[in-house]
Amino acid sequence: MSKSNNTEIASLGEFGLIDRLTARLKQRNASTLLAAGDDAAVIDLGEEAMLLTTDMLTEGIDFDLSYFPLKHLGYKAIVRGANDILAMNARPEQAVISLGVSAKISVEALDELYEGMELAAKELGIDIVGGDTTASMNGLIINISMVGRAKKEDIVYRSGAKEHDLICITSNLGAAYMGLHLLEREKRVLKDIENPEPKFADYEYLLERYLKPRAKSNVLEALREEGIRPTSMIDLSDGLASDLRQICRSSQCGARVYLERIPIARQTTELAEEMRIDPVIAALNGGEDHELLFTVPLDKQEQVARLGLVDIIGHITREEAGVVLVTPDGEGIALKAQAFDR
Amino acid sequence: MSKSNNTEIASLGEFGLIDRLTARLKQRNASTLLAAGDDAAVIDLGEEAMLLTTDMLTEGIDFDLSYFPLKHLGYKAIVRGANDILAMNARPEQAVISLGVSAKISVEALDELYEGMELAAKELGIDIVGGDTTASMNGLIINISMVGRAKKEDIVYRSGAKEHDLICITSNLGAAYMGLHLLEREKRVLKDIENPEPKFADYEYLLERYLKPRAKSNVLEALREEGIRPTSMIDLSDGLASDLRQICRSSQCGARVYLERIPIARQTTELAEEMRIDPVIAALNGGEDHELLFTVPLDKQEQVARLGLVDIIGHITREEAGVVLVTPDGEGIALKAQAFDR
Repeated sequence: MSKSNNTEIASLGEFGLIDRLTARLKQRNASTLLAAGDDAAVIDLGEEAMLLTTDMLTEGIDFDLSYFPLKHLGYKAIVRGANDILAMNARPEQAVISLGVSAKISVEALDELYEGMELAAKELGIDIVGGDTTASMNGLIINISMVGRAKKEDIVYRSGAKEHDLICITSNLGAAYMGLHLLEREKRVLKDIENPEPKFADYEYLLERYLKPRAKSNVLEALREEGIRPTSMIDLSDGLASDLRQICRSSQCGARVYLERIPIARQTTELAEEMRIDPVIAALNGGEDHELLFTVPLDKQEQVARLGLVDIIGHITREEAGVVLVTPDGEGIALKAQAFDR
Repeated sequence: MSKSNNTEIASLGEFGLIDRLTARLKQRNASTLLAAGDDAAVIDLGEEAMLLTTDMLTEGIDFDLSYFPLKHLGYKAIVRGANDILAMNARPEQAVISLGVSAKISVEALDELYEGMELAAKELGIDIVGGDTTASMNGLIINISMVGRAKKEDIVYRSGAKEHDLICITSNLGAAYMGLHLLEREKRVLKDIENPEPKFADYEYLLERYLKPRAKSNVLEALREEGIRPTSMIDLSDGLASDLRQICRSSQCGARVYLERIPIARQTTELAEEMRIDPVIAALNGGEDHELLFTVPLDKQEQVARLGLVDIIGHITREEAGVVLVTPDGEGIALKAQAFDR
């Protein structure tokens, strides 16, 4: 390990680390159509292309086994992988699973994890085709790699957004983030109590959004049936602010989103206020939504609205205009990835 | 987590855990030609097929950063992934990298890791096309998933070995295992010394075999040029005993290997004797060889021998005969995965 120079990873900022690490990578196969920089890599198969993605979850960072049921965790792990393929407008088909397993994990626990993974795989039409199991010194590690297929012309990249395109999302935001906060609060409150009875009443929806996110393949199917192809798309996992900035960065454009149009569930607002969290922060920066964020041409507005499956929250602008959140009183605020400045 | 039943993973034995976990998995895509049970999954592309594999390495189990240079670790991680594709007689083409990174890892350390990965990728003609970086509470985690391609008719499975086929290996065995033992010994001996000077003289070859294994794509090319297609093949990573048993299990056959034909490097024998380890145990059960173990039809004996690249160590028998090690005095010993019984 390098001793003289020690740059902290956090110091490189939002896109810095990945840019730095991938800068040295060279592509040498003609079959590589797209490497880093989108939800999945794209590999040429002729008329079709194969999408390839990988996603790692580590205990203590991405999940806490004291409240995350293993069956749900398996389900969510598959949904996360599938979302990366779906966000390219492709169909996920095969997955391989790597597990790092600590000594405290029993065979029955792994059974539950696999049960959840197979349930999600069944719902999404995915085959789990193999994997690797290794020991882990500390905690459970899950890595899902997935491949999917699409006709080349159907693939949607982050880079295709154009000025005037409409910005769409497939659900209200911030619910999963508040679900996580609720679980963390109950864990803290109840940690010294013998028979803990966590208070989840009225907030089951938030828990479900965090513990068992659903892949939105139905929205993509509806768009396909309507003959609407998104111009750009991303898996909404790091929060609207960060993910919209990714689209704007890849598409070299700006965006205006309207605060009053961003859907926030009643329970999200209620719990956020109870916990003294700004519900708007939860919605914009919370992350873990695992929904789709995409753009469509302006002339599809009516058709998209009629589907009843998405919210149109703003539109794409020229790059110089920046990525802006418009408040109800018409003020424009630069939308930052971690928190937005007033 | 399950509280009532807690079966320890180790109790399920050699093939038990994977069998149990994969038993519940159903395949639902016609494109899935082969799921679990080989070095890689096989996905139908028409005339060709795509191979998909995943491999996880965790700090403290698969590597020790106190003596494993990060550049070598990156190199080895790519070679390990590539070997799974090569062992199907296919060409590795694209890889995706997941990293779990603890706070103690600097950007410069990740630079070194990526430098090693890119070096191996360059040598093997692989493109690193993306990845995922997450935080890790405890230590570095590396997951490599790789895809490769081959004509369907060229793919070699574990299951194709036939009676009388010759058993071949691409290098001497046990060297990497002894390299690991040497590194562990020097770490123990020098742990309280201020300016440690580890004694590696005369054993550099063993270190190289452990720290920087080379993929044997040249052997596969030579076989291809000779028009020889192996009947079965496996990446030699868990030790000859275990991996040969995998071939025999998949091919429903037995095997006889001759102890005097198993190549063991002079340094391997010398260090093993110095450390009071049976060199034969190192060769049969050590693992980490990352060479190829394969079978060819009996009538290719001369052609294969002429290549000068492989050792023929035995032959395939009927299943009832078991997997047997023949000692120089002609005695047959059942070859067990963990250790062999006398």
